[in-house]
This record gives sequence, C-alpha cells and structure tokens, in this order.
Amino acid sequence: MAHVARDKKKLLARVRRIAGQVNALEKALQAGTDCADVLVQIAAAKGAMHALMMEVMAGHLAEHVAAEPREARRVAEAAAVVDLLRRYSR
Amino acid sequence: MAHVARDKKKLLARVRRIAGQVNALEKALQAGTDCADVLVQIAAAKGAMHALMMEVMAGHLAEHVAAEPREARRVAEAAAVVDLLRRYSR
Amino acid sequence: MAHVARDKKKLLARVRRIAGQVNALEKALQAGTDCADVLVQIAAAKGAMHALMMEVMAGHLAEHVAAEPREARRVAEAAAVVDLLRRYSR
Amino acid sequence: MAHVARDKKKLLARVRRIAGQVNALEKALQAGTDCADVLVQIAAAKGAMHALMMEVMAGHLAEHVAAEPREARRVAEAAAVVDLLRRYSR
Repeated sequence: MAHVARDKKKLLARVRRIAGQVNALEKALQAGTDCADVLVQIAAAKGAMHALMMEVMAGHLAEHVAAEPREARRVAEAAAVVDLLRRYSR
Repeated sequence: MAHVARDKKKLLARVRRIAGQVNALEKALQAGTDCADVLVQIAAAKGAMHALMMEVMAGHLAEHVAAEPREARRVAEAAAVVDLLRRYSR
Repeated sequence: MAHVARDKKKLLARVRRIAGQVNALEKALQAGTDCADVLVQIAAAKGAMHALMMEVMAGHLAEHVAAEPREARRVAEAAAVVDLLRRYSR
Repeated sequence: MAHVARDKKKLLARVRRIAGQVNALEKALQAGTDCADVLVQIAAAKGAMHALMMEVMAGHLAEHVAAEPREARRVAEAAAVVDLLRRYSR
C-alpha cells in the first residue's frame, strides 16, 4: 500500500488544519484585521504547508526510492524530488 | 483606509484560490493520487501562500512604515516585519 | 553614520566566519569528504548567509526606512527590500 | 567513484566562485558600500550556496540512494536528506 494511502488519515488531518487556517485568514481579511496579524497568519499557514511537504517527501523518498527494488524506478522517483526542490525552494 | 481594506477584494480572491488548492489537495489524498503529483500540488499551494505574504508585506511596508508620519510607529511596524522574516524564513 | 558603517566590525566578523566555512567546504571537497557531511556544511554556510541577510535587512529597515525623515526616500528604500525578498525567497 | 569525487572539478569551481562572492562582500563592507547593494550581494551569494546544495543533493540521491544496491543503505542515505531538509528549509 502506498505511503500516501497508509498515512491518509494523518495527512488528511494536516490538510484540514491548513484549510482551517486559510478559512480563518479569509475571515480575518473580511473583518479588516490588523495587517501585522494577517502576515503572521499567512506565515503560519505557509509553515504548516512546508511541514506537510516534508512529511510527504520523506514518505516518497522512503517508499518510492529507498524501498523500490527496480533501480530505474528509483532513479526516476529520486529525480522527481530533486526537480521539485529546484523549482520550489531557494 | 488601510491597504488590507483597500486591497481586500484582490487579497480575498488570492486567499480563495489558495483555499481551492487546499481543497483540491484534500480530494487528491482522498482519491489516492500518485504522491509525486501530491507533492507538486503542495509545493504550488505553498508558493501561492508565499506570494500572498509578499503582497501583504509590501503593503505593510509601504503604508505602515514608509507612509507613516510618526517615527516611533514606523520603527515598531518595521520591527514586526523583521521579526516575521526571522521566524518564518531560512 | 550608516548602520553598515556603525556595525562594520560585527558584520565583517560574520562575513569572515562565512569565508572560513566556504574555505573549509573547499578543503572537504578536496579531501573527498563524505557527501552527506558536505551537504551539512553547505546548508550551515547558507544558514549563516541567511542570518547575515536578516541582520543587514533589519538595519536597512530601521535606518533607511523607519528613521528616514523624507517620505519619498522611505518609499524607495522599502521597495528595495520588497524587491529583494520577491527575487530571493520562496 | 563517489559523485563528489567525479564532480570534484565542477563543485570546486562553484565553491571558489562563492568564496569570491564572500570576498567581494567583505570588500564592500570595508568600503562602506550602500547597504541596499550589500543586501543584493548577500542574497546572490546565498542563492549560489542554495544552487550548490541542490547540485550535491541531486548527486547524493542519484548515487547513494537510487543507485545503491543495499536497501538498508538506501534508507539511511534517504533519511539523511530528509533530515537536512527539515533542519535547513522553511
């Protein structure tokens, strides 16, 4: 069973918490909340999204690369992680 | 009028797009989507949050720091941005 | 006196420590050090560079934006920080 | 031959360029260069370190994880990358 399926409950709980943060952010903007507080809310939601990314990336590397018996598959899946990091991190 | 109020419509549109991305991410996990695709969705949502943060930070610096006539207020609001950057960036 | 001049000694000490880290990295590569260790050395040097950036950015915002009496100068110097963040962070 | 050894020339060239950037930064501070320019120099050197990290990480994942025949070694080396990412990225 793929790690995303095995960890589905845990990952869904994280995503729903992030959805709640984004929802609270919408309400804060509606209510005209002080922008320094809005900034902290955005940064916290971004941090939670980063933590989710690390969780799924760790699972991907463990299952689709390290535990994968076929070398050609391992090479392709490892390259997908490197490509993601190059595009989305600085 | 505070920039968050003035730009409310634009900022709300961004937050709702991010809410849509998070919602799509939940569906992808529910459907057992391939984890390399899930990773790209997460990274894209994180990127959108970062762009939103830059937008609100630019408004904060322009309005609450650069355009603020009282120096003491400027110093406090500038320090809030530096504190946020130290806590949430690497 | 500009903050960079006032904090020169402290900033130069940081830059020289980073130069030492980069020099040690060159030696590690020369010696064929294990690449997991090389990765940690690179990440540590990058972290030190980020901390230096936060230090100089805090000084820039405090002195050239918050403490600057002319609004037009404040607006230009604040925009320089936002531009830097947009180009170099994700 | 380990990728760090195989790519030694290329990696050393990158590290020496970064050393040059750090050296130029020291000179800029010595000369009292405008701090907005100093910030751009710092951000550029940090970007170069990030690119070097991606290069070595790609080599590590390709050689010590994907191409590694022993699963236990693959698991350990993949975990080292995840640990590095958790500690040094946000």
